[in-house]
Amino acid sequence: MERTGVWLIGARGSISLVTVAGHAALAAGLAPPAGLVTERPAFAGAGLAPLDALVFGGHDVRAVDVRAEAARVLAECGVPGLAAQVADALDTYAAAVRPGVARGGGGVIEALADDACGARTDAEAVDQVRADLDAFKAAHGLARLVVVNLASTEPPFPPHPTWADLAALRTAMEGEASVLPPSALYAFAAFEGADAYVNFTPSVGSRVPALADLAVARGAVHAGADGKTGETLVKSVLAELFARRNLPVLSWFGQNILGNEDGRVLEHPENKATKVRSKDHLLGKILGYAPETKVGIDYVGSLGEWKIAWDHVHFAGFLGGRMTLQFTWNGCDSILAAPLVLDLARLADWALRRGERGVLAALAPFFKDPMGTDEQRLVAQDEALLAWLGA
Amino acid sequence: MERTGVWLIGARGSISLVTVAGHAALAAGLAPPAGLVTERPAFAGAGLAPLDALVFGGHDVRAVDVRAEAARVLAECGVPGLAAQVADALDTYAAAVRPGVARGGGGVIEALADDACGARTDAEAVDQVRADLDAFKAAHGLARLVVVNLASTEPPFPPHPTWADLAALRTAMEGEASVLPPSALYAFAAFEGADAYVNFTPSVGSRVPALADLAVARGAVHAGADGKTGETLVKSVLAELFARRNLPVLSWFGQNILGNEDGRVLEHPENKATKVRSKDHLLGKILGYAPETKVGIDYVGSLGEWKIAWDHVHFAGFLGGRMTLQFTWNGCDSILAAPLVLDLARLADWALRRGERGVLAALAPFFKDPMGTDEQRLVAQDEALLAWLGA
Amino acid sequence: MERTGVWLIGARGSISLVTVAGHAALAAGLAPPAGLVTERPAFAGAGLAPLDALVFGGHDVRAVDVRAEAARVLAECGVPGLAAQVADALDTYAAAVRPGVARGGGGVIEALADDACGARTDAEAVDQVRADLDAFKAAHGLARLVVVNLASTEPPFPPHPTWADLAALRTAMEGEASVLPPSALYAFAAFEGADAYVNFTPSVGSRVPALADLAVARGAVHAGADGKTGETLVKSVLAELFARRNLPVLSWFGQNILGNEDGRVLEHPENKATKVRSKDHLLGKILGYAPETKVGIDYVGSLGEWKIAWDHVHFAGFLGGRMTLQFTWNGCDSILAAPLVLDLARLADWALRRGERGVLAALAPFFKDPMGTDEQRLVAQDEALLAWLGA
Amino acid sequence: MERTGVWLIGARGSISLVTVAGHAALAAGLAPPAGLVTERPAFAGAGLAPLDALVFGGHDVRAVDVRAEAARVLAECGVPGLAAQVADALDTYAAAVRPGVARGGGGVIEALADDACGARTDAEAVDQVRADLDAFKAAHGLARLVVVNLASTEPPFPPHPTWADLAALRTAMEGEASVLPPSALYAFAAFEGADAYVNFTPSVGSRVPALADLAVARGAVHAGADGKTGETLVKSVLAELFARRNLPVLSWFGQNILGNEDGRVLEHPENKATKVRSKDHLLGKILGYAPETKVGIDYVGSLGEWKIAWDHVHFAGFLGGRMTLQFTWNGCDSILAAPLVLDLARLADWALRRGERGVLAALAPFFKDPMGTDEQRLVAQDEALLAWLGA
Repeated sequence: MERTGVWLIGARGSISLVTVAGHAALAAGLAPPAGLVTERPAFAGAGLAPLDALVFGGHDVRAVDVRAEAARVLAECGVPGLAAQVADALDTYAAAVRPGVARGGGGVIEALADDACGARTDAEAVDQVRADLDAFKAAHGLARLVVVNLASTEPPFPPHPTWADLAALRTAMEGEASVLPPSALYAFAAFEGADAYVNFTPSVGSRVPALADLAVARGAVHAGADGKTGETLVKSVLAELFARRNLPVLSWFGQNILGNEDGRVLEHPENKATKVRSKDHLLGKILGYAPETKVGIDYVGSLGEWKIAWDHVHFAGFLGGRMTLQFTWNGCDSILAAPLVLDLARLADWALRRGERGVLAALAPFFKDPMGTDEQRLVAQDEALLAWLGA
Repeated sequence: MERTGVWLIGARGSISLVTVAGHAALAAGLAPPAGLVTERPAFAGAGLAPLDALVFGGHDVRAVDVRAEAARVLAECGVPGLAAQVADALDTYAAAVRPGVARGGGGVIEALADDACGARTDAEAVDQVRADLDAFKAAHGLARLVVVNLASTEPPFPPHPTWADLAALRTAMEGEASVLPPSALYAFAAFEGADAYVNFTPSVGSRVPALADLAVARGAVHAGADGKTGETLVKSVLAELFARRNLPVLSWFGQNILGNEDGRVLEHPENKATKVRSKDHLLGKILGYAPETKVGIDYVGSLGEWKIAWDHVHFAGFLGGRMTLQFTWNGCDSILAAPLVLDLARLADWALRRGERGVLAALAPFFKDPMGTDEQRLVAQDEALLAWLGA
Repeated sequence: MERTGVWLIGARGSISLVTVAGHAALAAGLAPPAGLVTERPAFAGAGLAPLDALVFGGHDVRAVDVRAEAARVLAECGVPGLAAQVADALDTYAAAVRPGVARGGGGVIEALADDACGARTDAEAVDQVRADLDAFKAAHGLARLVVVNLASTEPPFPPHPTWADLAALRTAMEGEASVLPPSALYAFAAFEGADAYVNFTPSVGSRVPALADLAVARGAVHAGADGKTGETLVKSVLAELFARRNLPVLSWFGQNILGNEDGRVLEHPENKATKVRSKDHLLGKILGYAPETKVGIDYVGSLGEWKIAWDHVHFAGFLGGRMTLQFTWNGCDSILAAPLVLDLARLADWALRRGERGVLAALAPFFKDPMGTDEQRLVAQDEALLAWLGA
Repeated sequence: MERTGVWLIGARGSISLVTVAGHAALAAGLAPPAGLVTERPAFAGAGLAPLDALVFGGHDVRAVDVRAEAARVLAECGVPGLAAQVADALDTYAAAVRPGVARGGGGVIEALADDACGARTDAEAVDQVRADLDAFKAAHGLARLVVVNLASTEPPFPPHPTWADLAALRTAMEGEASVLPPSALYAFAAFEGADAYVNFTPSVGSRVPALADLAVARGAVHAGADGKTGETLVKSVLAELFARRNLPVLSWFGQNILGNEDGRVLEHPENKATKVRSKDHLLGKILGYAPETKVGIDYVGSLGEWKIAWDHVHFAGFLGGRMTLQFTWNGCDSILAAPLVLDLARLADWALRRGERGVLAALAPFFKDPMGTDEQRLVAQDEALLAWLGA
């Protein structure tokens, strides 16, 4: 069996650990494939790689005991005991995690970093990452590799003048100053080796024109951004209800509270700004007009791995009569995101195998802020994905 | 301009009054057409009748002061003052309302009836209704007529052996015993005159094989059943989220509380049984399996025209992790239903004009329990409606 | 150290198991005494028995593996691993559980009973229970014993003419027909030995005049009924807000969904009737008038040990302006009830030690339907409890 | 009948208008006294002034058409038609409103001010206000006057070194620089004339040591701060539940959204800071420890006069089991606040009549941040109020 590498950025974070532990649990028959989109019957004939074909490694800037942290996260998510059952897989994975890139990640992330590689320029960082990826592919004889960015959200990174031109960017990357944030450096490294890059976060990632050019030139594929796992997912179907019923949305207020490491990073106003921007613009696209909206995200440590969202939708009906819909979403982020990481790895692998290059707009249903398309309606996105697969 | 009659059963009930008052308000430019599906841009080229072309009359078994009741309902729905602004239209309408059919409606409805026609057999009732419809058409020179059933929910009516055969049914209808409930007698009368019949309630209506045959034979059209205005509407988009994300729904509990006349009728166990049955089966069709479900409906008088629904969705994610989604819907039923009545009148009129006959499956997005199709997903239903219209 | 017995009816049910496991965990220093009212600083000087002084046994009619069931319940309640840590205590307890009384418990309970004692008359049942209690006291050298009824809710039991007269009741109990439900038979047995009886359920228990006489005659104490652990607890403080602010409550609708064995028993209409009656009458007492109310309880199996309540309070303000308060309670019933069982055991023990006899009205804060007082306001109840203790 | 003046700061704002219109409606028998604490039977014998004895005037810095604005606010609050019924009272009131003080109110408030008096020093402002109060008292032959601050929340005002010493403060007030914000200038003016001052907002008001001295010296009374009308009111009873049940609160997150003028002012970070501080500290006082808390307030214009609060309470039970309570409050702020303004006027009037001087700690139940006491529990506060009144 041909094998495909799945390389996780933020490799010791909650989503990565649940992804790896969960993959092992599925392989061992300990759990059904709930939450995997690509395990729906509609995807059966598409020719996606079997889950068994996936091999995991990754980068992280924080030193964390993988087995203990996986046990803690899984127990908090309501799956106690699982980490012990897949301890071997976690240990193997832990050995495949390499020191990550912190430079350019902003003060909060740099302060957390106690296992970062020591690159002095962006170019050195890319070389180091690329070397790690190549070593992993060689060690496991991997046909293809999918890099998935699951790291904490970066603060907004000011676009550099060279982002529009690959040659100029390469030159600038030789200097000591950061010209790309870590999320983009990983994308750069992935593209250099014709690997896939998937940005599950709202950070810059591959949304740099020169990087898009590089991907096409090298035959790499990429997709993003910001995994759609909770409140925004619900929004993306409910907004369509209002559109199809011609009920004007007057205001849509959403408040998220969460307690994990990502939440702690989002406490910092600069990191939060990146996130809120990503969550707040799909309504206009689905509704065809821009209602009054606000999205709040706050850290509430006691919640641990859980994320609660409360949304209050104020809408008008016939004759201007005013009504409301409220919802409360109570989700474990890692449990929601991990199966999508497996889906994305399989889909990007499929695209590489088929010789696609550049942005994979068909992966839109997985993202809050999809690249390559303006389609934000979940059903339409999912139908387009199936059409792309010929399924 | 050709004009079309809209004949409302339950003509003095909340939905009817808001429909007529709202229609007048739109005509007078007092309100935008919010909540009308057929006013979405996508419907612009379909050739539907203009709203101005509609003329209203109806049947009711309760004697109610139309103007005062409309004022009360509209004020409760947050639109005070409107009834006074459209008083002329309400008065004209009040004069066009005829005594309705109570026989066969069950004890609760029969007890409420203080303005019922005195038919002694089902056949007489149909004749009386048909005479009223013909008189209305003649008086206004109407090209076509759409009967819309907005009456309170009937208790379950045991199917009669003759329902499968039109001739036998006709014979049975000559006897003193009720063989059809009022909702079906109105459909019978409508079909006899090649008019349209739309069942906005969960009552039997046109779901009688012999009636379906009569509609085809006479060139009548019909659609139903049970308007999808609130909790079930939300369900029909949210359930698709769980299906498309492959998240198993463990249980879906829904509780409705409402305070209007319909709610009072639903207090009676036999009437409630009809309603709950209609609300509870779309989940299985959308999800492809039957989760644990329950739907409660209770009368809480203080709510007046408002209906509150609380739904608790318990679902599993990856590795069996359990999560929840709850929503609270706070809607004014008449405000939600009235524009759909206008939509349905226009669409049924269009079908008659085009020479269609029999069940209009394309009207599925308007109903909890659509006739002629198993499709329960709102988006797919709406796309099918647009396709039917060639829009 | 003097020791006190705590004898649990429904000994293999969730609450009992969490009570015993939790008691062992506290003793071992594995958990702080959260949720125990009597561990508040205000109770420190009252002279209550130390928790270490309590020894557990009980009756049950269902044969259940105590250790496995405790492990399941605790894991569902978010405390995985604890059962294993207190396995010895659970085993000791399991050995002290005796076959219970099923006769008179109604069809549902009798059908579940696979470990019931074989008494042919109520008198025999009381003798059997009393013998078990005496054996337990002797085996452990117990100074006092508190029987706590934690069994599933019984259906309404029609009052027997002899309930008003102890002698007549004793005679009737010699016959084959049931004249008392199990909850009352246990109370009878407890009183015969001058032990305490606490009714944590809405079943009849000690609310029989002849039994009250027996308690006073023998020097026994008793309290109840129906533990106030969730929705009703919240009601009992929120209702006071509306009373003190002079805000008229128009309607208060509460809906409970739960998934444990108690819920399954409540599925049966007759058992549910007992419960709903108990939950629904405190509002009138706190508010001073009777608003429109409804309380629903439904079984939703997927919830397991969890109980979710949604309450919708519709109230009027100044000038009749209408507003709402909604709350959702998401609680694990056993986790909420178990510490109160320990509280009640200590408080009833204290009363016995002080020579009290008859109803302990001061225990009102623990009950939905307190005996011996009409006070339903939590704060006033709690202050009265402290005053009784001289604390 | 002796008459008492009620002088409203923010006289053309929503609360003031509902207070005056509502007072007139009560006088005319158009509405029952719902929402007035002092109309509870327990207050009947206390000797409070009859509502008829109150006469209204006030200050505002914004020019607003009183009758039109009252009509708009009342209609939004669900009481359409009332403004027209009390038009005369509104007109009389409008004529009694004088230009207010904007100096020292911060940029946002100063920018809104189009009807401010032109004082050039704080001393001049106080003189102008005092002159207005005296004129009002003279015109109506008022025995006593109660000034109630209902103006928009001021931004934090840095304490001035002279605040501790009345003589030094008087001197500083002669300068051009603001040394007191408007809320304190009104208090100063009230105290100078031995009138009462009630601070219904979180602004500084009378919380200035020199002002407290002045009140005692002159025989004035005062109370505050920040009316407890919604989310905090609910908190103040629910927190006691957790305290009395010994259930540790892990975190308490509250989010408010509101659409009125106050909300618009709170959009400004500096004004919001004052408000959040006031809402967030009662939990520690009631619980006896400080849980993780956050309170958000956001402006959502479409809500108009309505305020929605969502609170998520995360708490631990026995054995550390984690549970949640959520509530949603849907209130019309003016409807909730206006009757309390009438209560406070009567109570402060009573205190003046009895010769009290200085802070009225007994008025604590009306405030989020009560002066003169640390008691935050609603029930205890209300009992203390009744005791103070000898009721």
